[in-house]
Amino acid sequence: MSKYWSVTTRGLKPYVPGEQPGDKKYIKLNTNENPYPPPPGVINAIRNAAGERLKLYPEPTCIRLRKKIAGYFGLNASQVFPGNGSDEVLAFAFKAFFNPGEKVIFPEITYTFYPVYCKLYGLDYINAEMKSNFSISVDSFKQENGGVIIPNPNAPTGKYLKLDAIEDILKNNMEKVVIIDEAYIDFGGKSAVSLIGKYPNLLVVQTLSKSMSLAGLRVGYALGSEELTEGLVRVKDSINSYTIDTLAMEGAIAAFDDGDYYRETSSMVISTRDRITAELRDMGFEVVDSKANFILISHKTAKAFDIFRLLKENGILVRYFNKPRISGYLRVSIGTDKEMDVFVDTLKNLL
Amino acid sequence: MSKYWSVTTRGLKPYVPGEQPGDKKYIKLNTNENPYPPPPGVINAIRNAAGERLKLYPEPTCIRLRKKIAGYFGLNASQVFPGNGSDEVLAFAFKAFFNPGEKVIFPEITYTFYPVYCKLYGLDYINAEMKSNFSISVDSFKQENGGVIIPNPNAPTGKYLKLDAIEDILKNNMEKVVIIDEAYIDFGGKSAVSLIGKYPNLLVVQTLSKSMSLAGLRVGYALGSEELTEGLVRVKDSINSYTIDTLAMEGAIAAFDDGDYYRETSSMVISTRDRITAELRDMGFEVVDSKANFILISHKTAKAFDIFRLLKENGILVRYFNKPRISGYLRVSIGTDKEMDVFVDTLKNLL
Repeated sequence: MSKYWSVTTRGLKPYVPGEQPGDKKYIKLNTNENPYPPPPGVINAIRNAAGERLKLYPEPTCIRLRKKIAGYFGLNASQVFPGNGSDEVLAFAFKAFFNPGEKVIFPEITYTFYPVYCKLYGLDYINAEMKSNFSISVDSFKQENGGVIIPNPNAPTGKYLKLDAIEDILKNNMEKVVIIDEAYIDFGGKSAVSLIGKYPNLLVVQTLSKSMSLAGLRVGYALGSEELTEGLVRVKDSINSYTIDTLAMEGAIAAFDDGDYYRETSSMVISTRDRITAELRDMGFEVVDSKANFILISHKTAKAFDIFRLLKENGILVRYFNKPRISGYLRVSIGTDKEMDVFVDTLKNLL
Repeated sequence: MSKYWSVTTRGLKPYVPGEQPGDKKYIKLNTNENPYPPPPGVINAIRNAAGERLKLYPEPTCIRLRKKIAGYFGLNASQVFPGNGSDEVLAFAFKAFFNPGEKVIFPEITYTFYPVYCKLYGLDYINAEMKSNFSISVDSFKQENGGVIIPNPNAPTGKYLKLDAIEDILKNNMEKVVIIDEAYIDFGGKSAVSLIGKYPNLLVVQTLSKSMSLAGLRVGYALGSEELTEGLVRVKDSINSYTIDTLAMEGAIAAFDDGDYYRETSSMVISTRDRITAELRDMGFEVVDSKANFILISHKTAKAFDIFRLLKENGILVRYFNKPRISGYLRVSIGTDKEMDVFVDTLKNLL
């Protein structure tokens, strides 16, 4: 604590990302990265952009990227707001749409960045109760609130909410913004993008970090009605005119040419996930049904933190959350088949 | 205006950056970019980083970059906070150190992003009066305030404040954070970095966008006592864990190996600036003494906006500010000698 910190800064409880250790080579199953590399077109686009033009600022409205994303989803460029990763997009959205004094509502167990944003902006929040199997209860989002945010699939549970449930929540919150955080939507879920034309209060947030294998590029985006994207632009232009650098911009533009590649790598992740889910269940693990590129697992007898520690000693990183209701679980990102076989074999040896 | 916007968002007055037009090729003297390209080492580092590793998140603490910058300035890595351009670093600093209800103080004519940050965070501010020649008055920073920010050299005037004046301001504000925004310091000024050991309340902010020819990379940084950088980390980790992508990180690390190159290109900019200043004065222009990579100019009879418009028609972009006291002036970035000769010749033809 320093006397120079603002009152807000003193009260912050910052988000803690998963480790990116440099000490040795791990099988990294801790930050939900994609085990498959980005396609060659993206790499070439970045290499071509690395040159004299870096002396100039990027184009601040990202119009080429917005047009490209809009084309991919059948939207208008004015319905697309790109940013420095979906975390930044979400941070801007909390500022743009939620007011202190009104309570933002999100699932009881969810992405741990949401309460961090609330602290930063002085927002109150409601933890919407979940069923014992980690399912989201639609009814819990029908109470009075100042805005809604739900990850679909949810993190770190991997639980997926069907589109009719999302639509039910949208209909019951027409005066408030409903953010659907779809970081993991491409691993078996159906996107709420199809509802954008019908619901001006819907903001869908996606990222290039997961299904597009570009976590290192820091590009995410929001899709929604023009009045929502315009609100985001106002916040962004009050913080930083250029949040996406020239290299990330060109890489991201190229990425949207490779839909087929991503559908293939995503289906590989899905098939590995489903195979490993079955194997772990055979070994006596509880595995929450997942439509994401990770699974939440728990063992009948072995303690989650002990397994976490032993795996790390054996060169495998997974994520442990010391939080109510999930401290008995580990979140395991889905790697390649080979990586996951090592993971399962190591578990068998340890238990 | 949308019913979905938060109260804050409705009141925002976003910053408007200079144009980055795509319609035709201009001589770009409007956004203070460097006319010289980044050195080959930076380009190579970026090209090498463009590969499979982009599937992984960047290292969130930026430790390699922080060590590199620290080494360049003779500081510790813990005294360095890097971000997505100095604008983002400044936005985080306003949040980290300034409180609503206390008045931030900055020069009457200065970087127009400062009042934008204040609006965003609900901060009040005092415009410190300036002398008629745009000089900053040190005494005006001795009134009660909630924090100080001064660009040195100032923008868009180019006026430089000597280090003893900065030290005087620091001494008179020991209980408040004093931010010296040194985006343009390498074009003839002396950095306040040398005062960091002595003043825990001093935060120096610099950027790779100007003297390092990397505006397209979006990397800036703050230098100061550990308690200040720690405050910035808390804010950043409440918004976005990874603000610098893998490519920008590697480019920035490489940039700090090329000090000699930047000293040479900066001295070329300085010599062009001083030559053009003399030529414009011979033509009857008032040119404010500048230690930056731009000059603020005014003509005795021709109106600034008319000159701006005519230059644009002739393929030359400069910056016009429709603001009190400077609406009679144009800000002209310093290009190559050849570009500036075209600029001067075009002006001669127009007047």
